[in-house]
Amino acid sequence: MHENNRTEIATLGEFGLIKHLTQDIKLENPESKYGIGDDAAVLEFPEKQVLVTTDLLMEGVHFDLVYTPLKHLGYKSAMVNFSDIYAMNGTPKQITVSLAVSKRFCIEDLEDFYEGLKLACQLHHVDIVGGDTTSSVTGLAISITCIGEAPKDQVVYRNGAKDTDLICVSGDLGAAYMGLQLMEREKAVFQGEKDVQPDFAGKEYLLERILKPEARKDIIEALAKAGIKPTAMMDISDGLSSELMHICSQSGTGCRVYEERIPIDYQTAVMAEEFNMNLTTCALNGGEDYELLFTVPLTAHEAVSQIKDVKVIGHITKAELGCALVTRDGNELELKAQGWNPLKQ
Amino acid sequence: MHENNRTEIATLGEFGLIKHLTQDIKLENPESKYGIGDDAAVLEFPEKQVLVTTDLLMEGVHFDLVYTPLKHLGYKSAMVNFSDIYAMNGTPKQITVSLAVSKRFCIEDLEDFYEGLKLACQLHHVDIVGGDTTSSVTGLAISITCIGEAPKDQVVYRNGAKDTDLICVSGDLGAAYMGLQLMEREKAVFQGEKDVQPDFAGKEYLLERILKPEARKDIIEALAKAGIKPTAMMDISDGLSSELMHICSQSGTGCRVYEERIPIDYQTAVMAEEFNMNLTTCALNGGEDYELLFTVPLTAHEAVSQIKDVKVIGHITKAELGCALVTRDGNELELKAQGWNPLKQ
Repeated sequence: MHENNRTEIATLGEFGLIKHLTQDIKLENPESKYGIGDDAAVLEFPEKQVLVTTDLLMEGVHFDLVYTPLKHLGYKSAMVNFSDIYAMNGTPKQITVSLAVSKRFCIEDLEDFYEGLKLACQLHHVDIVGGDTTSSVTGLAISITCIGEAPKDQVVYRNGAKDTDLICVSGDLGAAYMGLQLMEREKAVFQGEKDVQPDFAGKEYLLERILKPEARKDIIEALAKAGIKPTAMMDISDGLSSELMHICSQSGTGCRVYEERIPIDYQTAVMAEEFNMNLTTCALNGGEDYELLFTVPLTAHEAVSQIKDVKVIGHITKAELGCALVTRDGNELELKAQGWNPLKQ
Repeated sequence: MHENNRTEIATLGEFGLIKHLTQDIKLENPESKYGIGDDAAVLEFPEKQVLVTTDLLMEGVHFDLVYTPLKHLGYKSAMVNFSDIYAMNGTPKQITVSLAVSKRFCIEDLEDFYEGLKLACQLHHVDIVGGDTTSSVTGLAISITCIGEAPKDQVVYRNGAKDTDLICVSGDLGAAYMGLQLMEREKAVFQGEKDVQPDFAGKEYLLERILKPEARKDIIEALAKAGIKPTAMMDISDGLSSELMHICSQSGTGCRVYEERIPIDYQTAVMAEEFNMNLTTCALNGGEDYELLFTVPLTAHEAVSQIKDVKVIGHITKAELGCALVTRDGNELELKAQGWNPLKQ
């Protein structure tokens, strides 16, 4: 956040601020008929299904501004919503953005936030069609709604997994969680609570994963190109274990996931060792990876195996077999949805 | 809020809570294909334009739980979003709801909120297609996104007002603002700050206006029935003066509004007198009435005059004449957008 050279928000007022932050926004998609400036945005989706997802992010719960630059926060806030649309096998087209800010924040802070937001939107060809900024008594609240589209027969739900389907994930898991641990450690150092020198060398990937996640548009495109429509799909925001159990419970199935097949980056493994944490637990329960978890029919095995950055990690079973992790030594451990649940803490 | 017999949110956890609050929600509209329970809601609007509006309401800024029952808050949160869709000459069809709640709140509180929300949705035939509940370090944050539809040539923007058009408003103005003053006074009494006995007798309408506003679906329907498509329209959330200036600035026009024609309820007038406030100022700048402000061509004068609860209060002029109030004694006072602007305070 900007400490010096700050311009107070009160100098612009509500309408002035919104205008200032959004005046250079152009609409890119033909589906966006009218953007910011009226009571509602006007969109058009002939022949398509419309996807709507929304996220409310609260300071102190979902992000910590001590180690999250506002530009990254803007980028990530947009990205996690795009991820939800891709997880339906759709294409994000528009977002609306509402911010509630306390007096701690200045105009330059919000410019940084919008810079990140716009960058994410440019990369994914998404229009910002609504922007609202209001005040908050404490902290920052960010509410983003993303609208996307998909051809009528292409939407993929969580509830379509079938016995014998293959379970696939994109990228690797647990790195965002390790990045978060790393940042928390640095924060403790910064606040003089611990006597550990922060050292980010060789851990850049972990920081990137937590601060600048990327929604997997590339995987959706690769699946389409390969002619594969997943039977079920969702994005991994709460952790693999929790998400797998959602798919199985909604599909009325069980599953087997093989510990040795869970994709984990080298830096994640090194960090887990350093923190003396169980690596598989981190990969199963660490959230915020925003990778895609999906199931495909057994017949798609060869095709899906050829997609870069996708790995088959197990298979769907009948419901009565339950959800289990098959460990390296062949034991079966029941999956538990520990996940990331601030309401239980 | 529930003080006794409270069930802590932690007993259900995030997923359990969402399920508990939304399990009896049924989808009513054919445009709602899939609601709560996946990464995104799935909607379908063949041949229609899609309207999207969103609101972020923060405790301590937009509402005060000392005098706002949570059921009313749920009702109002939905209603103000419906109002934005009607203000585009559209029909609200779906909402998504995100709540961030601190530990002060219990499950029964959120049940109350959802009860009000569902009541508003039932009255306007709107489906709840997304619901998310997360935690907050302090206070309550409510984010609602409303999706509506309108036939392609029927959307009404703010920017279509033309010289000589008539300026119309529905209902009456200033009552919500007076209701707010009344509640603030009662709060002061409650907190022992002032020695005034609260007395709501004969002021029920003012309380209703601030606690339980109604979106003017009836006016939109009456306009359609009368074959009138407004040239510009918006809802009055910040105050007549501020909204009129939006329409004029976006339409590139000026306006004249006649003080004697501004509709004001008897209770509002009595209360302004009691508070020693200027009645016209309250009606011009008091926010949260959620009435519709719109312009129609001069040729629609007779037709619009016959619509119940609509009043012609002035006319649009060329831009160079500016925006002015014509007082009872014939003087012209330039309109100023005082409005309600928490970011300037």
